[in-house]
Amino acid sequence: MINPLEPALRKQARFNLPNRFLALQKLITKKVLTIILTAIVSFGVRAQQNTGFRQGSLVSPQISEGNSVTFRLKAPLAQSVSIKGDWEADGGKGTMTKDASGVWSFTVASLPSDMYLYTFTVDSVQLLDPVNPFVCRDVGNLFSVLITNNGKGDYYSVKEVPHGSVARTWYPSTAFKTSRRMTVYTPPGYEESKTRYPVLYLLHGSGGDEEAWVTLGAVPRILDNLIAERKVEPMIVVMPNGNPSKQAAPGETKENLAYRPVMSNTLPGYKEGSYELSFKEIVDFVDTHYRTQAMKSKRAVAGLSMGGFHSLFVSANHPDLFDYVGLFSPGINFKTVNMNLPAYNDLENKLAAQMKKGIKLYWMGIGKTDMLYEPLQEYKKILDKIHFPYKYVESSRGHIWSNWRSYLLEFTPLLFKK
Amino acid sequence: MINPLEPALRKQARFNLPNRFLALQKLITKKVLTIILTAIVSFGVRAQQNTGFRQGSLVSPQISEGNSVTFRLKAPLAQSVSIKGDWEADGGKGTMTKDASGVWSFTVASLPSDMYLYTFTVDSVQLLDPVNPFVCRDVGNLFSVLITNNGKGDYYSVKEVPHGSVARTWYPSTAFKTSRRMTVYTPPGYEESKTRYPVLYLLHGSGGDEEAWVTLGAVPRILDNLIAERKVEPMIVVMPNGNPSKQAAPGETKENLAYRPVMSNTLPGYKEGSYELSFKEIVDFVDTHYRTQAMKSKRAVAGLSMGGFHSLFVSANHPDLFDYVGLFSPGINFKTVNMNLPAYNDLENKLAAQMKKGIKLYWMGIGKTDMLYEPLQEYKKILDKIHFPYKYVESSRGHIWSNWRSYLLEFTPLLFKK
Repeated sequence: MINPLEPALRKQARFNLPNRFLALQKLITKKVLTIILTAIVSFGVRAQQNTGFRQGSLVSPQISEGNSVTFRLKAPLAQSVSIKGDWEADGGKGTMTKDASGVWSFTVASLPSDMYLYTFTVDSVQLLDPVNPFVCRDVGNLFSVLITNNGKGDYYSVKEVPHGSVARTWYPSTAFKTSRRMTVYTPPGYEESKTRYPVLYLLHGSGGDEEAWVTLGAVPRILDNLIAERKVEPMIVVMPNGNPSKQAAPGETKENLAYRPVMSNTLPGYKEGSYELSFKEIVDFVDTHYRTQAMKSKRAVAGLSMGGFHSLFVSANHPDLFDYVGLFSPGINFKTVNMNLPAYNDLENKLAAQMKKGIKLYWMGIGKTDMLYEPLQEYKKILDKIHFPYKYVESSRGHIWSNWRSYLLEFTPLLFKK
Repeated sequence: MINPLEPALRKQARFNLPNRFLALQKLITKKVLTIILTAIVSFGVRAQQNTGFRQGSLVSPQISEGNSVTFRLKAPLAQSVSIKGDWEADGGKGTMTKDASGVWSFTVASLPSDMYLYTFTVDSVQLLDPVNPFVCRDVGNLFSVLITNNGKGDYYSVKEVPHGSVARTWYPSTAFKTSRRMTVYTPPGYEESKTRYPVLYLLHGSGGDEEAWVTLGAVPRILDNLIAERKVEPMIVVMPNGNPSKQAAPGETKENLAYRPVMSNTLPGYKEGSYELSFKEIVDFVDTHYRTQAMKSKRAVAGLSMGGFHSLFVSANHPDLFDYVGLFSPGINFKTVNMNLPAYNDLENKLAAQMKKGIKLYWMGIGKTDMLYEPLQEYKKILDKIHFPYKYVESSRGHIWSNWRSYLLEFTPLLFKK
C-alpha cells in the first residue's frame, strides 16, 4: 500500500493561514488586509483554527509492498532519534538515521498483518509521530497507530461492508450508587429491524476502561467484518467500565482532565468483588434498553487480563446468566486475592454449580511468554480436578493487544451457534 | 485546582514492568523467573502492554489558583523548548526555561475559563505534552487539551449531572449512493422515556467531520450541563459528516489510516451543492430512527464556518424544515462559489420564501478579527434589503473554537421555546 497522499499534503501546506495572517497584520493596514484576505479566501479556503500538517509533505508511516514500513521524522537539530513499537522484530526497537535534509528514517523489513503502536524518542523525549494523526490511548499513554494488511490487520480495518453503531451511554448502578458509563456496539441493521440479538459482554484489563476494546481492541471493525463474512452471528457487544472506583474513562468523569489514567490496581475498590457480584445490574439494564435475546444461551462474557479475572468470577457467581465464557490472558493469580471475600470464596463449588447448570463454551487463551502463563496453568488444574470442560489455546508472544484482538477473532465465531 | 495526582503517578512509575521483564529474562532461568514474577504479580499488578507514565512524576499542565497554568517538559538534552497554545495572551506563545534537572517549564499568569489546545516545540520538533493523555484532533493535527474553570470552561467539563448518550451511526444516502456516518447526542432520559424531542442539526467546518463538534465543540458536556440547569430544552443533536467526498471521519472510511485529514476544500465535491440539496434525507433518517418532534418548529440547523455556509443553504433550500438557523462565523464569501448552481442560485428569492414561511430565529455570530468578518457584513446587507429578521452577535477574537463553543452556549437556550 503506497501512501497516495503526498500531493495532497503538499497542497495542504500552502494553506497554513494563521501564521501568515499574524505576520501580515503587523505590516499592513486593515483596508489592504481586507483586499488580500478576500483574494486568499477566494481560493476557497475556510481555514479553521489549526490547519496544515506540521511537517509539510513528509509521509510517515509509509507502508510498502510486503508490509515493509518506513517511519520518518523531521528533526534537523536532534542528536539521536529512535523508534519503539510493539512489533516482534528486534524487540520493536530501531535507531533512525538522518539524511541531508534533517529527516530521520527507519524501515522495518516486513510487519506481519496486524495493528501496531509506536512512538519516537528524540534526544530522550518520547513523542508521537507528528504526521500521523491516528492515535490510541493505552492506560495513560498515547501511541501512534498503523495497520498492515493481507491478514489479521484486514479485520481491524474499515471495509466496504455494513457498519454497526457504537454508543457511549450511562446506566444507573445500584451497587455503586452512581451512574456508570458503557460502550455498546449494535450490529448493522439493528436500527432497521425488530430482531432480538445475542449479547457479548466484553471486559477490559487493569488500567483500561470502556474505550479500550473499541480503540485498541478494534471491536467495531472486527464485528462488522466477521458479520459481513457470516463468520459470526450478528450480536450486541457491551463494554462496561470495570474499574470499581471510577464511573467512566479518564476525561469522562467529574474529575475531568485532573484524573490521569493509572493502573486499576492502584485505585481503591480493586478486587473487593462488588463489580463481579453486581454484574447482573448491567445485564438487566442491557436487556431492558436493547433488543436482546435475554437468555443464558444467548449471552457471553469475556475479558482480557483483569477482565478475564472478572469474567471468571462474574460467570461463576451467576451460573444462570452465561453459556459462553472467554478468559483472554486472564489475571488469575489467586495468591493476590483475598479468597475469603464473598465474590471469590468457595470457587470449586461455584464452578461445579456452573458446570451443572450447563455451559456451551469455556474458552481460555494465553501467550507462551505471558507473565500470567503459570497462574493459568494452576487454574486449569482446578478445572481438571472437577472435570470442568474447557477449550485452551496457546499463542506466541505475551500480554499484548495483538493477542487479545486475535483471541476475539477466534472466540466470537464460536458464540451463539445453535 | 491543584492537580492531586503526583503521588499516584509516582506510585505508577514503579509498575513499568515490560522493560524490567525483558532485562530479567536474559539473566535468569525460567524457573527463577516464575518465582520472581509471582512475587511481582502478588503486588496486585496486572500489567498491560504499555503502562506507566513516560515522564515519572512530572505534572503538566498544572492549573493553580486564579487559573494560572504551568506547563512542564523533561528534555535535558534540548537546546530550546517553546509552547504554542490557542489562548490570547502573548499570542499563545511562550519560551520555556530549563531547571537543573532538565525540566523545562512555563507559566501563563491567568487563562480565562475555557478549553485550550497547545503543543510544545523542542529544537524545531512539534510534539504533544507527553504527560497529558488528553488530546483533540483538529483537521489533521493533534493537540494537548486543558480546561480552566470558573466560567465557560465549567460548561465544557463533566459535572455530576445526568449524562446523555453519544452514538456513532451510519445512514444510507441516496444522494451520495453510499452510507455516511453521523454522531448523535440524545439527552439524559431519552432511553427511559417515551418523550419525543426537538432536534438540532449541528454542522462542522472545512476539514472537520462528524467528530469535530463532540470533541473540540464539547457538545455532550455543554448539552448535559445546560439541560441540567434547565437553560435549554432537552434535545437531540445530530452531527452529520458534511464533507461531500468522504463517507466519514478520517480512520473511519475504507481508506483507513491512509487518508490523512485535509481541508475539505482540497477534496472533490466541495461546494457543488448536493449535500445542501439532499439534506432532507438526513432529516428523514433521524425522524425515522429517533423519537423526534418531526415538525418545523422543533428543528434547528446551525454550523460553523463551512457548516455556516451549509446551514444557510440547507435552510434556504428547505423553507419548510427549520424554524431556527444559526450561522457561526459562516464561510459565506459568495465570490468563491458558483452561484449559478441549483443549490446556490436565486438566493434572495429563496430567502424571501423562507421568511414568508416563517422563521423563529436566524442567529449569526462572528469574531471581530475573523477573516470572514467582511463577507458576513455583505450578507447582512442582503438580509436587510429584503427585511429578513435576524439576530447578530459580535465577539472578540477570530475564527476559533473558543468562539464556536461560546456561540453554542448562547444559541441553544434560544431554541424550541414555546
